[in-house]
Amino acid sequence: MRALAYFKKGDIHFTNDIPRPEIQTDDEVIIDVSWCGICGSDLHEYLDGPIFMPKDGECHKLSNAALPLAMGHEMSGIVSKVGPKVTKVKVGDHVVVDAASSCADLHCWPHSKFYNSKPCDACQRGSENLCTHAGFVGLGVISGGFAEQVVVSQHHIIPVPKEIPLDVAALIEPLSVTWHAVKISGFKKGSSVLVLGAGPIGLCTILVLKGMGASKIVVSEVAERRIEMAKKLGVEVFNPSKHGHKSIEILRGLTKSHDGFDYSYDCSGIQVTFETSLKALTFRGTATNIAVWGPKPVPFQPMDVTLQEKVMTGSIGYVVEDFEEVVRAIHNGDIAMEDCKQLITGKQRIEDGWEKGFQELMDHKESNVKILLTPNNHGEMK
Amino acid sequence: MRALAYFKKGDIHFTNDIPRPEIQTDDEVIIDVSWCGICGSDLHEYLDGPIFMPKDGECHKLSNAALPLAMGHEMSGIVSKVGPKVTKVKVGDHVVVDAASSCADLHCWPHSKFYNSKPCDACQRGSENLCTHAGFVGLGVISGGFAEQVVVSQHHIIPVPKEIPLDVAALIEPLSVTWHAVKISGFKKGSSVLVLGAGPIGLCTILVLKGMGASKIVVSEVAERRIEMAKKLGVEVFNPSKHGHKSIEILRGLTKSHDGFDYSYDCSGIQVTFETSLKALTFRGTATNIAVWGPKPVPFQPMDVTLQEKVMTGSIGYVVEDFEEVVRAIHNGDIAMEDCKQLITGKQRIEDGWEKGFQELMDHKESNVKILLTPNNHGEMK
Ligand SMILES: [Zn+2]
Ligand SMILES: [Zn+2]
Ligand SMILES: [Zn+2]
Ligand SMILES: [Zn+2]
Repeated sequence: MRALAYFKKGDIHFTNDIPRPEIQTDDEVIIDVSWCGICGSDLHEYLDGPIFMPKDGECHKLSNAALPLAMGHEMSGIVSKVGPKVTKVKVGDHVVVDAASSCADLHCWPHSKFYNSKPCDACQRGSENLCTHAGFVGLGVISGGFAEQVVVSQHHIIPVPKEIPLDVAALIEPLSVTWHAVKISGFKKGSSVLVLGAGPIGLCTILVLKGMGASKIVVSEVAERRIEMAKKLGVEVFNPSKHGHKSIEILRGLTKSHDGFDYSYDCSGIQVTFETSLKALTFRGTATNIAVWGPKPVPFQPMDVTLQEKVMTGSIGYVVEDFEEVVRAIHNGDIAMEDCKQLITGKQRIEDGWEKGFQELMDHKESNVKILLTPNNHGEMK
Repeated sequence: MRALAYFKKGDIHFTNDIPRPEIQTDDEVIIDVSWCGICGSDLHEYLDGPIFMPKDGECHKLSNAALPLAMGHEMSGIVSKVGPKVTKVKVGDHVVVDAASSCADLHCWPHSKFYNSKPCDACQRGSENLCTHAGFVGLGVISGGFAEQVVVSQHHIIPVPKEIPLDVAALIEPLSVTWHAVKISGFKKGSSVLVLGAGPIGLCTILVLKGMGASKIVVSEVAERRIEMAKKLGVEVFNPSKHGHKSIEILRGLTKSHDGFDYSYDCSGIQVTFETSLKALTFRGTATNIAVWGPKPVPFQPMDVTLQEKVMTGSIGYVVEDFEEVVRAIHNGDIAMEDCKQLITGKQRIEDGWEKGFQELMDHKESNVKILLTPNNHGEMK
């Protein structure tokens, strides 16, 4: 079938020759993909990888899958076939996919060295995102959503009401990342929040925080195009490049108590956002890291946390419940459909996905949020 | 009256000339001191101060008190006089003192520039330990417990049942520091814990964790005398100096899941304990700093928190409820009286407090935990 696939280090291209997926386990579902967003991790895999993908000549350590494999993990689609034990969806249903593999998938991979092994502690305790076998559909475990079809077990399938257009539905995955993070932070309705960075993750965080009822949202961002984008979502924007070392004091002053924010979310992951995420908090405030950091440490003063009993945590990935809750939030209007649409800055066929998707994002990072690709199974591109 | 007092930078000595306290506000209480422990902060004030104390020639920025001032903030005693509006205790009651000053005390200091000003945000929200006007009785705000008498408003007075001996009662203050920290960490009964350091704060943390029902307590300590002390409290001791870079792996393996601890408490405050406090945790575990750190930053990898959604926080001081809860825990046996007695490694008169107290602790840090001083008002030294 047609797919935009990862072949080897530094080589991602369109192909007609990815094997069409088949149902091999009774609880699997085949989806005809509608849309699949390009994620920062996809670019990262090309620029600095392989990170999640197998190394050239190797098979995936979890599923034993071999390259090439279709990329793409932010997908929506329509169910086209279901295994005999599938109860959650039927053919024709609109769905999204929780792309995180875990112990719950080991029964689908007879060639895995972990085939049918017993669930890890994290999975047993319902934190599948922290599974010791964690991996992602579309990032090496199995072929992903930049393709005509995808197969996953029903556990990973979340039905989506038909009132939510399938292009908007492709945003449910990145929204689930930030939904999970906001839950991990212990966010309480009515709290004030600071979001550091208005890239794709920062903007998704804003949508979630609006949906969960933040009383005040301030976004700190320096890039003009992103500042504009954040303003369109109706939040207050602060540009620290205009205030230098006074930034933290001014930020704290923007809150009702003038004492700082209840919660902060670091969606940038650089030293200055790390510091600001802690120092701009009020006492007992919580800083949550959502950004992916490299191996270089940042300088940290334990008393910055201790003296005001602040909390620092971080969030990674999501669980199925996050997807279900985001679907409900979009459906009931807590997350505004119009806000979601603002995040889609491009739509392309998978045939053009490398040049007009990956390369466009690498060349014009700041003028894009999400570019969605489609195999055009259902005339998505008209 | 007699007192061991702070006179100026580097000068702490016994004197007969500290003015006897008087009741000047209707809700104040005068206590005849029984016992008062010497704290690490007292030594710190001498060695590196002034930290909390006024600078030479200055008055205290909060209370406007002038030097010399009696030191000592870990005190027990007997009520000897009460102001007309005191309802909480009567003459003859055994009590301990919450030594942390806050907005709740501003009405007692007519010479303060903050006299009768409105409570800060933290005090309004019940976090008096995070008060913007925070200070300590016996550390410069007013004269403390290394003296015949102390005066404080009833808000700071906690009655102690007569079944708890007054020497053990002098430990309620440091126990309240760690009680507060264990509460801040969100500790849940039955959890596994790692305590880093078996100095006075580490040992108090152990007593509190035993009292709150930890299922497993491991203490990491390198000093032989402290290791012995921790063993007497019936907990498992790990000596990282014998295991080098394998320490974290071994520590994690000591837990039931072999995956690390639910909670860790850093009672040392050095780079290696900081790292261990995070890395020896299981996923979603919480590291709490109780140590006081200098201004030098430690290297920190945000992914060490993020990849397993760990939590890092810190605790400072206490509130009145912590004292009340520690009193109850000792009274009902959750904190064992015998364990408390183990922590008292010396008893001296305030007249000898400098040489046999402060100097003894500076010269023989590891063979001491708590040295208590007494003005011998009630024949405490027989
Ligand atoms: Zn992604
Ligand atoms: Zn697992
Ligand atoms: Zn102390
Ligand atoms: Zn206050």
